[in-house]
Amino acid sequence: MTYPDFSFTITQERGAARLGRLVTPHGTIDTPAFVAVGTQAAVKTLTPEEVLATGAQVIFTNTYHLYLRPGHDLVAAFGGVHRFMGWGAPVMTDSGGFQVFSLGAGLEHGVGKVANIFPGEAGGVLAGAPVRTARPLMKVSEDGVRFKSHIDGTLHTFTPETSIAVQRALGADIILAFDECTSPLHDEAYTARSAERTHRWAERSLRFFQDHPAVHPYPQALYGIVQGGAFERVRKASARTVAGMDFHGLAIGGNLGKTKAQMRQVLEWTTPELPREKPRHLLGIGEVEDIFGAVERGCDTFDCVSPTRNARNGGVLARFDGEQPLPRFRLNIRNARYARDPRPLEEGCDCYTCTRFSRAYVRHLFKADEQLGQRLATLHNLRFMARLMAQIRESLAAGTFDALKRSWLEPVGLGV
Amino acid sequence: MTYPDFSFTITQERGAARLGRLVTPHGTIDTPAFVAVGTQAAVKTLTPEEVLATGAQVIFTNTYHLYLRPGHDLVAAFGGVHRFMGWGAPVMTDSGGFQVFSLGAGLEHGVGKVANIFPGEAGGVLAGAPVRTARPLMKVSEDGVRFKSHIDGTLHTFTPETSIAVQRALGADIILAFDECTSPLHDEAYTARSAERTHRWAERSLRFFQDHPAVHPYPQALYGIVQGGAFERVRKASARTVAGMDFHGLAIGGNLGKTKAQMRQVLEWTTPELPREKPRHLLGIGEVEDIFGAVERGCDTFDCVSPTRNARNGGVLARFDGEQPLPRFRLNIRNARYARDPRPLEEGCDCYTCTRFSRAYVRHLFKADEQLGQRLATLHNLRFMARLMAQIRESLAAGTFDALKRSWLEPVGLGV
Repeated sequence: MTYPDFSFTITQERGAARLGRLVTPHGTIDTPAFVAVGTQAAVKTLTPEEVLATGAQVIFTNTYHLYLRPGHDLVAAFGGVHRFMGWGAPVMTDSGGFQVFSLGAGLEHGVGKVANIFPGEAGGVLAGAPVRTARPLMKVSEDGVRFKSHIDGTLHTFTPETSIAVQRALGADIILAFDECTSPLHDEAYTARSAERTHRWAERSLRFFQDHPAVHPYPQALYGIVQGGAFERVRKASARTVAGMDFHGLAIGGNLGKTKAQMRQVLEWTTPELPREKPRHLLGIGEVEDIFGAVERGCDTFDCVSPTRNARNGGVLARFDGEQPLPRFRLNIRNARYARDPRPLEEGCDCYTCTRFSRAYVRHLFKADEQLGQRLATLHNLRFMARLMAQIRESLAAGTFDALKRSWLEPVGLGV
Repeated sequence: MTYPDFSFTITQERGAARLGRLVTPHGTIDTPAFVAVGTQAAVKTLTPEEVLATGAQVIFTNTYHLYLRPGHDLVAAFGGVHRFMGWGAPVMTDSGGFQVFSLGAGLEHGVGKVANIFPGEAGGVLAGAPVRTARPLMKVSEDGVRFKSHIDGTLHTFTPETSIAVQRALGADIILAFDECTSPLHDEAYTARSAERTHRWAERSLRFFQDHPAVHPYPQALYGIVQGGAFERVRKASARTVAGMDFHGLAIGGNLGKTKAQMRQVLEWTTPELPREKPRHLLGIGEVEDIFGAVERGCDTFDCVSPTRNARNGGVLARFDGEQPLPRFRLNIRNARYARDPRPLEEGCDCYTCTRFSRAYVRHLFKADEQLGQRLATLHNLRFMARLMAQIRESLAAGTFDALKRSWLEPVGLGV
């Protein structure tokens, strides 16, 4: 087997939006693309074949989780994450930074202290409030981050070098530089100091990546991560700094503000600073209106747990419930109104679930706590995302992106 | 669509063992056959296509569960259980009796009283010990059984007429007469009185079945149930009585004793009393050695939750672990010894799981609480059962059943 090198080709531009092709050793990704999340080397409830059949082109697995369990060495011994999990298409891994910060109750030295770095993302805790916790799980220094495993309490250290070494072992096609992910609770001063440290970590990640060749017999691409929170000066400086480094692509991470309007603002500060020719990944975004907003502002790929996590809670993605547009493109299949509903989860959908099962049956499975219900909803939601992205790509090719966006968002009173 | 009538043809007999073909409106079942259990109109974790792909020919769903949730009327409105769940092959339903008795803490009037009718099947409580419970969930009378829903505490009554009406609505190909399922805790006197009542219920079930045609546009077959516990006189009398009624087939139910040897003894009392030409279903049996024992004694079909339930707990069916025969034909995939094991769950197995994934990966999924692990183990275990049954049928055709049985049981020190 020969592996193609990594490349990104923009085939069409419409304003800031781009239609592209991202070539990786395990296949080509047509962009804009949604990246399905398979945290622990499995897209929850589904087989690799099923994920692929939804139209998903690429999955995201998590460095922190796989490092702790089953261990990156074990995954490497099985030929990397693709072979370990039986997924032949492209894979991305994150740097581990987000989980190290989000799964710990943080106690930090020298700069801001918060009891829980992410108590709900848009919570009401004052920025920089110095709350001490009895058992800190995480400690940041210039070198890296010391943290306790959320599984067994053992102590571990992630540095930029560790992160890249682990990601070399896991063997994803696209890997990410190590970063600190700040929260809306951090003030501008802390966010700026953190971003500068993230830039030093980016340099170290890049150097380690260049000095240590791939573990598996195919190349990997390394993306840098732009941080800077929702502060214009910091975000723009971070974008310029990371853009100037020799990465294959750029990811936009961290705190994107407390509202969807702020998220779009952050993107408007960021993407103009990034080199046109490199692919751009927006971390952790997956709501329909956010994807329209991010594509319009020049992002190429997006990962988010929400389509799969919502599915497991009975949150089914659909534009309409009968004649009625669904405000968040979502219905709750557990609702009593679907108890005798013979229609598919989403009328017109061509997915496995919708072509075979009624809402009544899927609802029964949820009410009866049958895992099959979660599977069927997950399959549908991933197919929904794949169809949405295909429509977006077609509209970019045809020059009808604005019309497509309006047709989706106006019936439910959303603008971007 | 035209539906064939119900028929059973014995194509080969070897001693008491029979090779047969059971024709139902939804397809033919080659017997001996294992019946996969799909309690709530779903074989847990799997789609209908997946169940069929394992080689399963027929599934068992539960009248009590579907009556309570989603309701037999709802299932009927969707065209019956086959259409509701998207399973085109044969279905059996039980009478509801077993769940009514086993899910209740029993308080019974007139005859024996036990706190919990099934506190572990082979427990040490004295037979007939009169233990009162504060909140009885179940009450038996000549008319039927009054019970509380285990879901919401509502009160319901099942009579022979209710059971058949519900099973007509559900629309399984093979349905069962209403019975009381006694336990090893009941003494002979109670077991005998209960069996006599079960015979009166059998007559009522049959009469209601004959007086009320099928709800769906295909016929159903009704099996009577032999009870009588592990008492020779009672069991033989029950077999003779039920054998004399106009059922399409016979099921052997209830308490089969406290040991596997007793179970085989009960079968030796029972099957000689049953008409040769009617199919025989043994309720709730599914361990490998029990199946060999039951086939040898003239049973044609068997249902049991153990292959699927064990799978969800990491209990993987396999004959060997490397060179070593597995005493209970089962390994625990969660065991640390499989952490880096590149082999399939069972070497030589042709199932979806074994042809794609390593023990190491499946173990990882179990350790990481990924539902996919339960799915992959369930798929394998059902394929294991289907392959076992196919081997048994081939051996009956070839006259090599005894050799096959010895090749399975002798390496692990089991006899039948």
